[in-house]
Amino acid sequence: MLGECLENVRKTHPLVHCITNYVTVNDVANILLASGASPIMADAVEEAAEITSICSALVVNIGTLNARTIPAMFEAGKKAAALNHPLVLDPVGAGASALRTETARNLMTEIRFPVVRGNMSEIKTLAAGNGNTRGVDADVTDTVTDRNLYGAVSFVKHFALEHSCIAAVTGAIDLVSDGSSCYVIRNGRPEMGRITGTGCQLSALTAAFAAANPLRMLEAVAAAVCLMGVAGEVAFSRLRKEDGNMAFRDKIIDAVYTMDVRTFEGTSRYEIL
Amino acid sequence: MLGECLENVRKTHPLVHCITNYVTVNDVANILLASGASPIMADAVEEAAEITSICSALVVNIGTLNARTIPAMFEAGKKAAALNHPLVLDPVGAGASALRTETARNLMTEIRFPVVRGNMSEIKTLAAGNGNTRGVDADVTDTVTDRNLYGAVSFVKHFALEHSCIAAVTGAIDLVSDGSSCYVIRNGRPEMGRITGTGCQLSALTAAFAAANPLRMLEAVAAAVCLMGVAGEVAFSRLRKEDGNMAFRDKIIDAVYTMDVRTFEGTSRYEIL
Amino acid sequence: MLGECLENVRKTHPLVHCITNYVTVNDVANILLASGASPIMADAVEEAAEITSICSALVVNIGTLNARTIPAMFEAGKKAAALNHPLVLDPVGAGASALRTETARNLMTEIRFPVVRGNMSEIKTLAAGNGNTRGVDADVTDTVTDRNLYGAVSFVKHFALEHSCIAAVTGAIDLVSDGSSCYVIRNGRPEMGRITGTGCQLSALTAAFAAANPLRMLEAVAAAVCLMGVAGEVAFSRLRKEDGNMAFRDKIIDAVYTMDVRTFEGTSRYEIL
Repeated sequence: MLGECLENVRKTHPLVHCITNYVTVNDVANILLASGASPIMADAVEEAAEITSICSALVVNIGTLNARTIPAMFEAGKKAAALNHPLVLDPVGAGASALRTETARNLMTEIRFPVVRGNMSEIKTLAAGNGNTRGVDADVTDTVTDRNLYGAVSFVKHFALEHSCIAAVTGAIDLVSDGSSCYVIRNGRPEMGRITGTGCQLSALTAAFAAANPLRMLEAVAAAVCLMGVAGEVAFSRLRKEDGNMAFRDKIIDAVYTMDVRTFEGTSRYEIL
Repeated sequence: MLGECLENVRKTHPLVHCITNYVTVNDVANILLASGASPIMADAVEEAAEITSICSALVVNIGTLNARTIPAMFEAGKKAAALNHPLVLDPVGAGASALRTETARNLMTEIRFPVVRGNMSEIKTLAAGNGNTRGVDADVTDTVTDRNLYGAVSFVKHFALEHSCIAAVTGAIDLVSDGSSCYVIRNGRPEMGRITGTGCQLSALTAAFAAANPLRMLEAVAAAVCLMGVAGEVAFSRLRKEDGNMAFRDKIIDAVYTMDVRTFEGTSRYEIL
Repeated sequence: MLGECLENVRKTHPLVHCITNYVTVNDVANILLASGASPIMADAVEEAAEITSICSALVVNIGTLNARTIPAMFEAGKKAAALNHPLVLDPVGAGASALRTETARNLMTEIRFPVVRGNMSEIKTLAAGNGNTRGVDADVTDTVTDRNLYGAVSFVKHFALEHSCIAAVTGAIDLVSDGSSCYVIRNGRPEMGRITGTGCQLSALTAAFAAANPLRMLEAVAAAVCLMGVAGEVAFSRLRKEDGNMAFRDKIIDAVYTMDVRTFEGTSRYEIL
């Protein structure tokens, strides 16, 4: 089932409009291409709505937001919502500055985002108006473990319901919920936290998967999250002793490129609560 | 002959001013260094003309154009034209938004670009004022094949004549013309389309080759196009089963770095029509 | 001793605020993660001071400065200075344009930077108000060799004294001085000059090392410089015949990630003058 979601990306080649940070933008473009989708980056307010209208999905990532790009996020977001495109919000660093927190909250107030993907600290910030975000990484007190799993699942379901979205909260254990059910996903490697941009890459993948699977968005988002985790595991198994985070970064994207659907399905580890 | 063009880049180390998109800028810088040239990226209007004046060539790539960088493109372009530097325009995504189409056309109206490099959809847009650009990739109906080759060659020659430029239209078959003759180049691999930025990289290479070979610009541009294609073939032959677009991207640039002139000449496949 | 500086980075995971150019920003983020530190990139003036206040160090790199980001450099710099954070200035291309020269000099006039890292041409420009910068590379007449070593050491010491900073002037021979003593470091490989951004990466590393070793900043900066050089040597030894600057770039960062403290100390080559 998750494999079918990937196959649909490969068949339909969705064009994804990315308004995303300049730190990880190249990796975002390449992982979209690796998955079978196509990227277009355009953050000028003068063209944001027009570019969105020729695409199948939009991802808004606030990782290096500024006074010039924030209006483009609103313009593109409103157009994408009007066209009923899958829109993904990645509230990078919400909680780390008032600008980030307020921009993310205003985006969610003015535009309905069908998908929101972030780490637990970012999502808590959006829920509560304050958070423990340590820069762009989740605070250690926000880690989801087997001990606090049920509380975390209930929080994510509630967030999804309140915002009429699919919430994807990723970390050691990933939670993906539409408010009624919740995928609890246990793929990935802790070493992925030492690569910049695996979260940004995942947000873009999520947009591609949602675009290619419009009638089962929850499953599509869960598939994107599993794919990133499985690619992390496959890539990790291919590392040599002298490899570090750069080799790992490249091999994850290459693992998405070469991912065999059977391996993907066989290696995905999730339950639905 | 093409090999001599590469040797001249390696001997003269041209400094290339790049006003280019932030998606692929790192790869653009590294492929210039791989070829023997040096990059400098500077897109502030306050310094654009001054930076251009210490360089040997300029490439203007509109991939992530915006209200801040567009004036810098004009400033740098005018200065480079006044200094008789080789200037290359890469009209990324012309046809995908009015902002891109108009900016590219205005640049060509106000400044003579000795070289224009793009895919067929972008060049058609510049010629006709409208195009079928799908995001930043050429539309499938614009693909050059053996069936429509003569028409395509005639179109490219006409475009080059009309704009007094060398037009490099790249795709499955690459066409490079100064209006009278046309190189038809059959190097490269279709998988290069699944890497972000091979076009951007080629545009920058073209500027370096033109700067190092001022007395035979047509041949220099054709050499840059062949080099990118040959590097793609060499890199592809070095891929392992688990490699994807990231490994391929890196190996293409590494193939430029390590390119042996004899291999380059022996592997180049072109005819002149 | 230098090894302890690296261990302190790995133990304390300093969060480094980077206002840095968009050419090499991804590599900067990944080398910080490779060293054990964490990056956050934020260049909007609206959040610059606030982001700095949650970090342990700041690096200001003017590689792609513009009218929007320059005020953020001043805001973040002033806040970091007020909080007594280690601040590193990387005056990329000072001397290549008036905008760069004046911005770098104004930054140093208004804010005390405890660390300044650049190539000899850039530092001479800051000292004299003019320089021989060739784009973003040092001019060949500014190369430090055994012949002009004593003059160069004396210049760097004088610069450090005059600006109450640790000056790190890197090139074939690296000089790191606080005004009284000077590390003369002979690690690294000339081929590192054919990768974009090794200087930017080093400046960010320097900030992380200074943050993790506040009571011995001179040694910390020297350790960062040695680490970059040793990583370059280790990476170079791992290159295969077909590898070029992209493989080398990745392997340097991976060598930082996997660096064994004993290897680091055993391979560091420096004297103190």
